[in-house]
Amino acid sequence: MNIDKLRGFREIYPEEMYIRKRVFETIKDVAENFGFSEIDGPSVEPLELFEVKSGQELVSQTFSFRDKSDRLVTLIPEITPTVSRMIAKRKDLSVPVKWYSFPKLWRYEEPQSGRLREFYQFNADIFGVSNVEADAEIIVMAISILNSLGLKGKYKIKISDRILIENVLKQMGVENIEEMFRIIDKSDKISKEEFVKMLGEYLDDDKILKLTELLKFEGSAEDLRSLIDTENNEIKNRLEILKTLEDYFKAYSVNEYKFDFSTVRGLSYYTGIVFEAKDEQGEFRSILGGGRYDKIVELFGSRAVPAVGFGMGDVVLEMLMRREGLWTSPPMQLDFYIINDNKFRTYAIQVLSKIRSYGFMADINMIDRTISNQFKYANKIKAKNVIIIGEQEVVDNSISVKNMGTGEQISIPFSEFFEEKIKTENIFKQ
Amino acid sequence: MNIDKLRGFREIYPEEMYIRKRVFETIKDVAENFGFSEIDGPSVEPLELFEVKSGQELVSQTFSFRDKSDRLVTLIPEITPTVSRMIAKRKDLSVPVKWYSFPKLWRYEEPQSGRLREFYQFNADIFGVSNVEADAEIIVMAISILNSLGLKGKYKIKISDRILIENVLKQMGVENIEEMFRIIDKSDKISKEEFVKMLGEYLDDDKILKLTELLKFEGSAEDLRSLIDTENNEIKNRLEILKTLEDYFKAYSVNEYKFDFSTVRGLSYYTGIVFEAKDEQGEFRSILGGGRYDKIVELFGSRAVPAVGFGMGDVVLEMLMRREGLWTSPPMQLDFYIINDNKFRTYAIQVLSKIRSYGFMADINMIDRTISNQFKYANKIKAKNVIIIGEQEVVDNSISVKNMGTGEQISIPFSEFFEEKIKTENIFKQ
Repeated sequence: MNIDKLRGFREIYPEEMYIRKRVFETIKDVAENFGFSEIDGPSVEPLELFEVKSGQELVSQTFSFRDKSDRLVTLIPEITPTVSRMIAKRKDLSVPVKWYSFPKLWRYEEPQSGRLREFYQFNADIFGVSNVEADAEIIVMAISILNSLGLKGKYKIKISDRILIENVLKQMGVENIEEMFRIIDKSDKISKEEFVKMLGEYLDDDKILKLTELLKFEGSAEDLRSLIDTENNEIKNRLEILKTLEDYFKAYSVNEYKFDFSTVRGLSYYTGIVFEAKDEQGEFRSILGGGRYDKIVELFGSRAVPAVGFGMGDVVLEMLMRREGLWTSPPMQLDFYIINDNKFRTYAIQVLSKIRSYGFMADINMIDRTISNQFKYANKIKAKNVIIIGEQEVVDNSISVKNMGTGEQISIPFSEFFEEKIKTENIFKQ
Repeated sequence: MNIDKLRGFREIYPEEMYIRKRVFETIKDVAENFGFSEIDGPSVEPLELFEVKSGQELVSQTFSFRDKSDRLVTLIPEITPTVSRMIAKRKDLSVPVKWYSFPKLWRYEEPQSGRLREFYQFNADIFGVSNVEADAEIIVMAISILNSLGLKGKYKIKISDRILIENVLKQMGVENIEEMFRIIDKSDKISKEEFVKMLGEYLDDDKILKLTELLKFEGSAEDLRSLIDTENNEIKNRLEILKTLEDYFKAYSVNEYKFDFSTVRGLSYYTGIVFEAKDEQGEFRSILGGGRYDKIVELFGSRAVPAVGFGMGDVVLEMLMRREGLWTSPPMQLDFYIINDNKFRTYAIQVLSKIRSYGFMADINMIDRTISNQFKYANKIKAKNVIIIGEQEVVDNSISVKNMGTGEQISIPFSEFFEEKIKTENIFKQ
């Protein structure tokens, strides 16, 4: 009988899980430090929920099916529609609303490096703030999360502004903005010649030069003025906003970002600033991505609610952290492992029960093993201390404790061991 | 546009999530205190995985479908087959293996009180120990979890032994043991008359009397001897085992259990002791249930690995905790909310950034609100302290801090506030 897991799915054993828990907890801790609250939603939704906003490409990659009542449903490929619906439902919420979630998501794509069919994705959104303060806050949180994971210097947040680029393109006379975004999105996957050729269908050489210069731009919002014709009011306004964004970054003391106007984030629902984190070596897909999407919530309710947020999957993050030697964790270690002879099991369990009641992680030998094999097992599982219960201990109502790190061993009346809890913690909990 | 969630699924808003997180963390903490390690597995598996052991009833209640490669797959209705496969794969593990998990599960049943289509289930198993010590340990952990949640006195663990009952039935001449378990399983859902009538098809009046006495039995393993003919060696052996189980419970100082031989736990794969937790008022379905299943792992690999474990869903647990007034949590509270005027946003963000870097939960007003409306918002979200940034503060490089509980307010140079971090924690973190 061999029914293995499906391709693109994972089994997580304790050694791995221990690291993942630490990583996930760090992410959640930063989110809460920033005043975000966790929410949770269904893993199965009506398929139409995603047809509303995500477009056919995403829908075609879903695990979707007809349920037993013949309703077309799907495993969620993203959580934004669910969260938007939750916002739309609750008219009593006072803005800003800052929510995060860490759901499993599913996409029926070909599994490959950085892409699985089942993965976890951290999501964070601020609802109800149209100011660029919210964009700044969400980007700074993304930076804080990556830095808290030890990734400072290993990545850069690339920031673009859909509205700015749209207006520049309009100024150039481009009519099919979506098509142009599609081409720009490809720019780093194709050769420069191919790219220029594609642009050539819509723009003359002069404008191609101007556009490619903008897409290659590196510098501050201030520097942009020399590159863009700022007579257009909308453009002037967007440059102001980017300037404010930079001011806030300065106030937050972060500099792990750069403007990169070749950043498009697909064709989806973004309506302003977009951003993604890329590893500095350019080896992986985006680590995280997001932006402003002011039109989604009203699709699910009557109110318009501005929103900005991002998502970060666990697959690329794990690859990057592995490459940097950060996908690690101190080993799981029992505080106490109780070695005992079958004959004295009852006394040993009394000791165990008491030790656990003080909050120590403790376990006991339960099977027929020689004392020396029990020691070997304690070594293998890296127990910090062992307690030995033999005949002498039962007679004396005592325990023998050995620190497996230092080799230090003491024998002490059972009652005293706990009366001096603080002392014993000092001795035995390094 | 109104695409609501599916029936039997839940949206969890922050207020609720906060409580759930506390409850889930408590459960996990107890498991780790007992030396269990967390694992995780796929939410989608080949449907055959469940046909192996769970029988057609469970399979007919799955969310199953053909994926895009025409493979018959299902959302997992339980995690035991996955965990058993994970054990079977890893031949390097030294026993005992103590694992827990907290997956979402899905069952396509009619939603009703205590039963949803999507729910979380805590699972814990000990692999590799055939002794009753493992049964005792897992039951004691179940008790510790429920007690840690404040439920002491609100439930009882009911324990039965399949092998004992099987042998008693054999002694009575019953041939179709499964059918008899099916009838016993119904005993508390039908009238006494109906029950006796069903038994009558297989047993004479004398034996019916003996059996119903056994099913009503309340007492210790010792007391059982007066009720059961112990000439049969297998029966004698099982009574010894129940006696040992009781001894261990005594050593663990737990008494939140009773023997109840009408407990069957369905027809599934249990091979020894079975148990479930029932609320004392008998209002709800089982809070948790489990037992020994020594034959499952070998279905997925060559080795026979004894196992004992239990599962506890979150739905009945929540209902019980609500009834007892325990489904609560201290409110989410920001440590600091920063009230500021648009004009001084940059300085305010510097303060915010610094405060967060000390690990405080902090947030800032980001929208155009009057100072007094910002105070109202801070009150509504129950911030512990507010920091006010106005012109004076910017000029002085200071901050004004108000404790929203006591009303106490101080103005202090920004630098000093953090130099005296410990002091400020004492003042402002109650």
